[in-house]
Amino acid sequence: MRAVDIIRKKRDAAELSREEIDFLVQGATIGAIPDYQLAAWLMAVIWRGMSAAELAALTEAMLHSGEVINFSGMPGAKVDKHSTGGVGDKTSLVLAPVVAAGGVKVPMISGRGLGHTGGTLDKLESIPGFNVNLSLGDFRRVLETCGCALIGQTPEIAPADKKLYALRDVTATVESPYLICASIMSKKMAEGIDALVLDVKTGDGAFMKKQADAEYLAQLMVETGTRMGKKVVALITDMEQPLGRKIGNALEVEECVEVLHGKGPDDLRELSLDLSAWMFLLAGRTKTVAEGKALASEMIASGRARDTFREVIRLQGGDQKIVDDTGRLPRAKHQTALQAPRAGFVAAIHCEQVGVASMMLGGGREKKEDSIDPGVGLVLAKKVGDAVEVGEPLCAVHYNAEAQLSNAMALLAKSFEIGDKAPQPSPLIRKIIGA
Amino acid sequence: MRAVDIIRKKRDAAELSREEIDFLVQGATIGAIPDYQLAAWLMAVIWRGMSAAELAALTEAMLHSGEVINFSGMPGAKVDKHSTGGVGDKTSLVLAPVVAAGGVKVPMISGRGLGHTGGTLDKLESIPGFNVNLSLGDFRRVLETCGCALIGQTPEIAPADKKLYALRDVTATVESPYLICASIMSKKMAEGIDALVLDVKTGDGAFMKKQADAEYLAQLMVETGTRMGKKVVALITDMEQPLGRKIGNALEVEECVEVLHGKGPDDLRELSLDLSAWMFLLAGRTKTVAEGKALASEMIASGRARDTFREVIRLQGGDQKIVDDTGRLPRAKHQTALQAPRAGFVAAIHCEQVGVASMMLGGGREKKEDSIDPGVGLVLAKKVGDAVEVGEPLCAVHYNAEAQLSNAMALLAKSFEIGDKAPQPSPLIRKIIGA
Repeated sequence: MRAVDIIRKKRDAAELSREEIDFLVQGATIGAIPDYQLAAWLMAVIWRGMSAAELAALTEAMLHSGEVINFSGMPGAKVDKHSTGGVGDKTSLVLAPVVAAGGVKVPMISGRGLGHTGGTLDKLESIPGFNVNLSLGDFRRVLETCGCALIGQTPEIAPADKKLYALRDVTATVESPYLICASIMSKKMAEGIDALVLDVKTGDGAFMKKQADAEYLAQLMVETGTRMGKKVVALITDMEQPLGRKIGNALEVEECVEVLHGKGPDDLRELSLDLSAWMFLLAGRTKTVAEGKALASEMIASGRARDTFREVIRLQGGDQKIVDDTGRLPRAKHQTALQAPRAGFVAAIHCEQVGVASMMLGGGREKKEDSIDPGVGLVLAKKVGDAVEVGEPLCAVHYNAEAQLSNAMALLAKSFEIGDKAPQPSPLIRKIIGA
Repeated sequence: MRAVDIIRKKRDAAELSREEIDFLVQGATIGAIPDYQLAAWLMAVIWRGMSAAELAALTEAMLHSGEVINFSGMPGAKVDKHSTGGVGDKTSLVLAPVVAAGGVKVPMISGRGLGHTGGTLDKLESIPGFNVNLSLGDFRRVLETCGCALIGQTPEIAPADKKLYALRDVTATVESPYLICASIMSKKMAEGIDALVLDVKTGDGAFMKKQADAEYLAQLMVETGTRMGKKVVALITDMEQPLGRKIGNALEVEECVEVLHGKGPDDLRELSLDLSAWMFLLAGRTKTVAEGKALASEMIASGRARDTFREVIRLQGGDQKIVDDTGRLPRAKHQTALQAPRAGFVAAIHCEQVGVASMMLGGGREKKEDSIDPGVGLVLAKKVGDAVEVGEPLCAVHYNAEAQLSNAMALLAKSFEIGDKAPQPSPLIRKIIGA
């Protein structure tokens, strides 16, 4: 078997066999196939797409390129949630303790933020002392002890994805629903879970701007996961404006703590409860989504989710007192506000630009190597549909350095659209796939 | 400027600027852009094609990646011919001495054979002592002395093409008319020529099986060369069966010598004379193609082309006596014949398979690193349209090793189609583009 023949076959729109895909993925993992051949193949995949059989073979080959965690000896169902990423998208930090407190285990392996989107690991690391770099052994122990564990990618999990993703990033071959599906599902299927709830974002602040693209990706992921014997459901959710009001790492942890205290913004709370409810349902913990949502609410109201959150923070080396005193979280030195240039109603908030503005302040990464400033970020005073007077604050800006402030402020000023009347409210959950 | 952005632009079907193409080609030449990014870009070009402006920019960037020979101080027009390659395609060895004898200089830089097609350099090297590896200084001296010079690629000429071609070969990105055009024309435009005659082959034994593809490539090359200030014409010629009767390196030199002696097969002689005639016309040496053809015939009849051929062989270190005694050429030890399984007329000879059979005997290369056996090859006893009796020889097989003989014979047996009546003869020159 020769890589060049496999590339040619894909280039000419033929279907690759499982053996051919295994050959490529194994070659990528051990370095036997040079990067330039992998890159040509990736671009041919962007061009030609993949059949369902090819996608299944690719996902399985990537999954088996590394270690597949086995939690079958641990009692109870294990369920995870994956989001395709957005701005202010912080539900993981709410639902992990909620679902764990409700008796379902949540072994969660997350990623970092890039560009305008944030990442769960960066948010967790804004909690003083919190260690996301656990070994797989420690991951298991934390999960067994408190019902959830929150770590970053380890070298053992899906090394083929690590290799291919790095190559995709520099060869303009990220944007293929097939490659995205295989990348996400190979990692999630390695977590030792029984079920997976997918939060596929769509809208201005999402990776998939068009709902049809989000639905297509969701469909692929649900089919791929189901074929691999897992229960999978995907929620298509709105990312036309940031989720919640706070954007930035410590600010987002703070907002999650608010929700765990029964407060916080409606949209964040509702989506966190809905995702938790689906996790309970897929785990067999409840019989309906409504029942699951009631259970999730109960975990918050009773304080049990807060207990679990304190516990997981403690077990992972972090300062658990932040759950009761968010003043212990890092905070930016300075604040300023963006003021409304006119009166009216907020018609739109350009979500991607808001994410970029937060990134400019140091809250995110332009390049993978960039470091994060955990305290900086934005607090939206107004969201879409809110009435606003001229000069009233639209958004508080938390910053440490002056350097990028004026650029960030200029971008934010362009991000708020103010109109004469309130727009029609749109639902947060647009569609459910695979239920 | 970042390579990943340029790849993305091409992937999304946008037109690249001259600056972007220069950036890629310079980066390829000096090694500043990694192979994996070049490979992804090449596959995106296969997918999206190129505009006329992009193709011009690419060809010029590749041309200027190395040395551009300047023969303007040398009196007289300089003209070359380039063929896209075929089986038994040996006209260069006839027309170079014919055109040089007729007073037009032919500075010819050729390539090696690969797969089922032969290469001029391999044929020349079957002449004992012939050195194709001249410096550019020696190339100039031989050209000045005898009117033609026949060498291989030098490291100074179009290094970007060398780099990109090696990458295309292993990433299934050879087959793009734009990349083929830029590769050929960047090298030919570096030869210091005033005009170029292109022999674009089409049919079973050609790179372009379909005439429409051959015409498209010819059109691109004529436009590109013309835009760069050269006179260019392309002949679309038939490669449904091998050209002439002899295939294999020394055997092809022998057949060229036959033509230079006024003998040899009609098709080879006619095509060599036609190509020579177009070279005379573009050089301004004659006013019409007919006049050019008469001049070419005269160069053969008078023996002056033979004189020039002896001279160029001598100047390049070879045994000039082969022009009068082809017995001095290397010859395979053994011969066998393929016999006709039935009586009838030769309806077709599957040209690519015949080329592969010759390659199997050692006459060509499967991989670039393979070495050539100069003496082996095939001599067709029958060509398309010929009547044949059962058991009569169709083809003589000249071989040294038994190893691949049976495979080659089996392939040859499948290559001859014998029918009940002679097929309609088809013209050798199917179309002329750019005249």
